[in-house]
Amino acid sequence: MSGQERVRAILETRLAQRAIILVIVVNAITIGCETSEYLMDRAGGLLHAIDRIALVVFTVELAARLYAYRGAFFRDPWNWFDTIIVAVALIPASGPTSVLRALRILRALRLVSAVPSMRRVVGALLAAVPGMASIIGLLLLMIYIAAVIATKLFGDIVPERFDELPRSLFTLFQIMTGDDWGNVAQEVMVEKPWAWIFFIVYILMSTFVALNLFIAVVVNAMNDLDHTEGRTETSEPSELEAVKRELAAVNAKLDQLLMRERSEELRSGADR
Amino acid sequence: MSGQERVRAILETRLAQRAIILVIVVNAITIGCETSEYLMDRAGGLLHAIDRIALVVFTVELAARLYAYRGAFFRDPWNWFDTIIVAVALIPASGPTSVLRALRILRALRLVSAVPSMRRVVGALLAAVPGMASIIGLLLLMIYIAAVIATKLFGDIVPERFDELPRSLFTLFQIMTGDDWGNVAQEVMVEKPWAWIFFIVYILMSTFVALNLFIAVVVNAMNDLDHTEGRTETSEPSELEAVKRELAAVNAKLDQLLMRERSEELRSGADR
Amino acid sequence: MSGQERVRAILETRLAQRAIILVIVVNAITIGCETSEYLMDRAGGLLHAIDRIALVVFTVELAARLYAYRGAFFRDPWNWFDTIIVAVALIPASGPTSVLRALRILRALRLVSAVPSMRRVVGALLAAVPGMASIIGLLLLMIYIAAVIATKLFGDIVPERFDELPRSLFTLFQIMTGDDWGNVAQEVMVEKPWAWIFFIVYILMSTFVALNLFIAVVVNAMNDLDHTEGRTETSEPSELEAVKRELAAVNAKLDQLLMRERSEELRSGADR
Amino acid sequence: MSGQERVRAILETRLAQRAIILVIVVNAITIGCETSEYLMDRAGGLLHAIDRIALVVFTVELAARLYAYRGAFFRDPWNWFDTIIVAVALIPASGPTSVLRALRILRALRLVSAVPSMRRVVGALLAAVPGMASIIGLLLLMIYIAAVIATKLFGDIVPERFDELPRSLFTLFQIMTGDDWGNVAQEVMVEKPWAWIFFIVYILMSTFVALNLFIAVVVNAMNDLDHTEGRTETSEPSELEAVKRELAAVNAKLDQLLMRERSEELRSGADR
Repeated sequence: MSGQERVRAILETRLAQRAIILVIVVNAITIGCETSEYLMDRAGGLLHAIDRIALVVFTVELAARLYAYRGAFFRDPWNWFDTIIVAVALIPASGPTSVLRALRILRALRLVSAVPSMRRVVGALLAAVPGMASIIGLLLLMIYIAAVIATKLFGDIVPERFDELPRSLFTLFQIMTGDDWGNVAQEVMVEKPWAWIFFIVYILMSTFVALNLFIAVVVNAMNDLDHTEGRTETSEPSELEAVKRELAAVNAKLDQLLMRERSEELRSGADR
Repeated sequence: MSGQERVRAILETRLAQRAIILVIVVNAITIGCETSEYLMDRAGGLLHAIDRIALVVFTVELAARLYAYRGAFFRDPWNWFDTIIVAVALIPASGPTSVLRALRILRALRLVSAVPSMRRVVGALLAAVPGMASIIGLLLLMIYIAAVIATKLFGDIVPERFDELPRSLFTLFQIMTGDDWGNVAQEVMVEKPWAWIFFIVYILMSTFVALNLFIAVVVNAMNDLDHTEGRTETSEPSELEAVKRELAAVNAKLDQLLMRERSEELRSGADR
Repeated sequence: MSGQERVRAILETRLAQRAIILVIVVNAITIGCETSEYLMDRAGGLLHAIDRIALVVFTVELAARLYAYRGAFFRDPWNWFDTIIVAVALIPASGPTSVLRALRILRALRLVSAVPSMRRVVGALLAAVPGMASIIGLLLLMIYIAAVIATKLFGDIVPERFDELPRSLFTLFQIMTGDDWGNVAQEVMVEKPWAWIFFIVYILMSTFVALNLFIAVVVNAMNDLDHTEGRTETSEPSELEAVKRELAAVNAKLDQLLMRERSEELRSGADR
Repeated sequence: MSGQERVRAILETRLAQRAIILVIVVNAITIGCETSEYLMDRAGGLLHAIDRIALVVFTVELAARLYAYRGAFFRDPWNWFDTIIVAVALIPASGPTSVLRALRILRALRLVSAVPSMRRVVGALLAAVPGMASIIGLLLLMIYIAAVIATKLFGDIVPERFDELPRSLFTLFQIMTGDDWGNVAQEVMVEKPWAWIFFIVYILMSTFVALNLFIAVVVNAMNDLDHTEGRTETSEPSELEAVKRELAAVNAKLDQLLMRERSEELRSGADR
């Protein structure tokens, strides 16, 4: 057994996989604890130490996997996922950028790649995305058009919500989620009483498209279900196959009988 | 090849179609940029120029399509859609009406008619509408009735929400979307403590009807799915057909056998 | 043709049914117009006149139907529905009770019983209710329990939301619809910081039960769809039936053949 | 009949079961009435008396069931449920702890275990949970990660919403339900204008995962439906079975015929 195979064998033991999951969970908790000033005052050193150890474990594990699987390593997208997460975790160690430090918790996402059932769930979620592309495109187009119209029409009336395109986009996304849209509409309607047309049309259309986006996902899910079920139900056609094969045998035997009778007839005709 | 056919061939090349999509996207972006004062100060002339060029391209393309397809042009509803959009875009060029200028962005909707997958999605959305007509009618009836009742009962108490029928309709639509209804109800209940009956009955009924509207759409979508699947599954009945045909052949051969035996019997009876 | 049959024939003409629908729609609009002071000042007399005429039409039509169908009249629940609505409409004519006057618009609901497609939709909606009874019961039980707990625990802290059982029920219904629950929770959490447990448990449980209520309706709808489809697909089993019948015939013929051969054998044995 | 069997027979009569349901309902109402000061002033003694009687009835019934079913009693989880509820109800009787007193209403949950149809509904709800475990885990992971990021990034800007991890978790749960998220985002965006990225990504991702959680439940429900339907449809395969059996009989008879003919041939060959 080469060193490469030995490392692979170790990585694939349940113990190693459980250990990694444990490190991920512990690390996620310690990063969470670091947000508490109370805990940082009392156990800040310990938390930082655990964090650094966890990072070392992740790096070593990733290096081991790279060593064990070589080229195959980069063929699994989940390995790319892990690599990027660990790489992001390594950057903030070199500088004190606040946003990057906050993103260290993204390491907890390694739980997704480490637990097979979560891997499957996320895989299923992502698999649903391409089928939704057209409807998502339509939704984005609708929001963009509505935002341009809203900026032009309401930009001067309610500048804190519609003064520029990005703000209008944000406000319209908020309205699409149904949050507080009544107030936004009322603010605009003080000056432009016909503005309800814009808001009601926008809400109805975006809800309708979002609803169909949702239905597309459900129908896809059902469809997948039917196909996986279809595979297990193939026993039935094969039963029909059996019936057909038996019937063919019956037919062949009858042909034999008929042929024999005919030859008998011929013989008996010759006899006479 | 006549000029008409040549134009049609050009219009149907992938290059021409991609070019049109590009012009639509670029134009949508420039109209979006026109909402920004910062960009208008710096590149206003350029933006306007692009806008005018795009409009010329659209008009020329539409004219070319009309020339290439003649009568068939008006049979495709998407062509009507494009014609109306370009026509609307041509109006504001003649006058400075603010609302019509804002509606210029509707040109971006041409993206829907230009991209086949979006065309299909919108077609599917519209196809779902007729099946929902009765439930939508019921929903509108309910909102109308509730609005008349609310105007009569609460018009004097909370005039800013229920003073006239149109405002009541707006408020009740807002309540149906679940936005801020608790506050509206509380304002009314200060004077009429039994008003919760109205709001809860209205919310339950409108939610229930809207839910069934939604279910109707899902069931229709599923139904369509089953039918398109049904077409591919017709192989199975044809297998049963094959079994039946073979069985009929078996039966016919047995009839032959029985007839022959009978005739033999008769002969052998005659022999004796 | 008796008078009874003649009346029935008249009632069942398309013209009569369309006329009634027209009267319902016109009356619904005039009652809506009565909410507008502007229109009442200008055309109040006309509106009242139309209202009274419509009521006379409804009463006459109902009396005609009662005369035409006699006992069968009371077997159709839609007739009960119409009778109650017209009866309610007749009461306020005798007194100026404001609530009852507001309920006159319920007459517009006669549109539901007059338009067959709406009748079917409402019938389908009501048919879905019994299957949801258990889950609705569970939901009511949950809200009741949560309201008693909230009244006892939070009644003194936020009396304007939880001081008595009915108000708690209203607040919890509002929270279940997701409206403004964050603020309600925050108000309570000022004094009882652990109150988030109550709100989050309540929201998760009520959402989960409501979700399952919704699923029950969808599954029922799908089920109905399958059954109605099942009826049209019964052609397949009958094909299998045909195969079985033919096979039975084949079998019987073979029995005949075997019997004959045996008897021949016996004869030929006797011959020898 | 032993005493044990007699008690069991009594417990299983419809009368006994209805009586228990009645006591549960009456007790639920009286506990509800105890929240009203008005009713407590007038009928406090009566309410307390009913409450104590109900508790005695529950305890006696539970003891009787324990006596009647012995070991089998603890095998039914619903009995555990009842035991815990009655036990919780007995604790506050010994002390005046306000929270525990408020939880006395949980006794009303005994209605669930006493009414068979509710038992089935709750059973179905709980059966749906394991299939959702992975997605719920993913959702919790997402909320946790978002809460850690939000605490680090926004903790200093909007301390009343994001100062500590638990508060961030609460705020993010609130945002996920779509309640008032626009205001929360706007408060943060005053200082960090790019914060909309965080909120929109979080809302899109949590909605998408929650949507898939929902779809998983629907698909499971549909799947169960198909399987229970599958069981009733097993008549069809058994029909195919019948066809196959009959065909096998046909085949056997043909074999007989062929054998006989062959032997006849041999004999006739020997005859010659």
